[in-house]
Amino acid sequence: MDIQDENKSFLLHPGERMDDLQRNNYRIIQNRNTFCFGMDAVLLSDFAKIKKGENAMDFCTGNGVIPILLESRTKGAHFYGIEIQEYCAGMAKRSVMLNHLEDKIDIICGDVCRAGSLFANDSFDAITCNPPYMNHNHGLTNPELPKAIARHELLCTLEDIVREAAKLLRHGGRMYMIHRPFRLVEIFQTLTAHKLEPKAMRLVQPYAGREPNMVLIEAVKGGNSMIKIAPPLIIYEKPNIYTREVQAFYDS
Amino acid sequence: MDIQDENKSFLLHPGERMDDLQRNNYRIIQNRNTFCFGMDAVLLSDFAKIKKGENAMDFCTGNGVIPILLESRTKGAHFYGIEIQEYCAGMAKRSVMLNHLEDKIDIICGDVCRAGSLFANDSFDAITCNPPYMNHNHGLTNPELPKAIARHELLCTLEDIVREAAKLLRHGGRMYMIHRPFRLVEIFQTLTAHKLEPKAMRLVQPYAGREPNMVLIEAVKGGNSMIKIAPPLIIYEKPNIYTREVQAFYDS
Repeated sequence: MDIQDENKSFLLHPGERMDDLQRNNYRIIQNRNTFCFGMDAVLLSDFAKIKKGENAMDFCTGNGVIPILLESRTKGAHFYGIEIQEYCAGMAKRSVMLNHLEDKIDIICGDVCRAGSLFANDSFDAITCNPPYMNHNHGLTNPELPKAIARHELLCTLEDIVREAAKLLRHGGRMYMIHRPFRLVEIFQTLTAHKLEPKAMRLVQPYAGREPNMVLIEAVKGGNSMIKIAPPLIIYEKPNIYTREVQAFYDS
Repeated sequence: MDIQDENKSFLLHPGERMDDLQRNNYRIIQNRNTFCFGMDAVLLSDFAKIKKGENAMDFCTGNGVIPILLESRTKGAHFYGIEIQEYCAGMAKRSVMLNHLEDKIDIICGDVCRAGSLFANDSFDAITCNPPYMNHNHGLTNPELPKAIARHELLCTLEDIVREAAKLLRHGGRMYMIHRPFRLVEIFQTLTAHKLEPKAMRLVQPYAGREPNMVLIEAVKGGNSMIKIAPPLIIYEKPNIYTREVQAFYDS
């Protein structure tokens, strides 16, 4: 442990680890038992286009990986993340401190279902969300566990997220979401019901020729009905070997 | 011209040609100036699953290529095609005769916007449609030309087609459609508004890595909200060389 690490180790709680984000020398605090970010957060932070001077909000931010990655990748002015689980929000705040980003990123511990009453309407240029994917919650043995909350719609639904995003976004503002393809019809329905028009979509396949297991969607508040569908993003060339496009996320 | 061709040549009108469908020795009458089927009809007839004993209806049937291909590929009981343009419907009827399929295929010259009053409600197991793709009709110099009618929503809209399909399909019956990806959101909206739930989708790309230019959709009357998205169908390996999957449509 070098001196720098020693100085920062007070930010780590028992059971946690510090991972290198391979970008700007940023690090992130993770906990295998509660929340570790996955490929979906990386893909979403690459798909979201935050322009110079814009304000961006991340719903369901977990350990804050998306605002931290967006701060490193874009020229956005300010980044926010909202997370309902106190422990996760705490990890996110400590990662913000770890990277000295207190002036650029605010993490709020709060309920995304009430985001529209926490922040001013029409005040964000972009909202990102890597929400809980699963809407069939029966049979969950530990619905209060952090991982269950992150994966299942226990504390917020797709409808909650989209409704609150529509309130916070300015006219012409963009929502960026990653989700499961099997819910695509419901996702489109929910977005358009709240005047967030899906304008771009990219399916994500683990390998060429395999069914997609994720979908990236950009919706524009008040947009007209016309969607641009990109060729699929393929993750692996072969087992453990990323395609050149995915490798470039980490190298850039 | 052999004897068989001579006997059938009375079915050909000036400007028409007879093409081999490479299936069951079936042929089809085409006219370059009015209607020739394209790759989209071939893809749709492969995507549509017509089971033994089922009745299938093709909306906007043009020269009848889809009912004729479906008759050759499936064990469906009876096939119907409806086409508003008299000349195209006439070509379709002559192609049915050419292949001696009068007992299996009925071509009706009529308006798809009124299909629900021409046939009994809830009476079809499957409906196929390769509709006019384009909804921006301004600037059309000859909106009465057959090709313009086949490509642009001049005589029927997506809403007309879906509304009438929903009337004719039995509960659990399937609608199979090919369309342009840029209209995907509107397609899903229109289908679900008429209780036709999109259950399967496949995007079609000209080449690997290129944007899709067609989308195949299966919707089920009264289905629940969950869609299965297949890996994309790639048409060309390289210029003029089909991928193995597409070549197999013609070889099978």
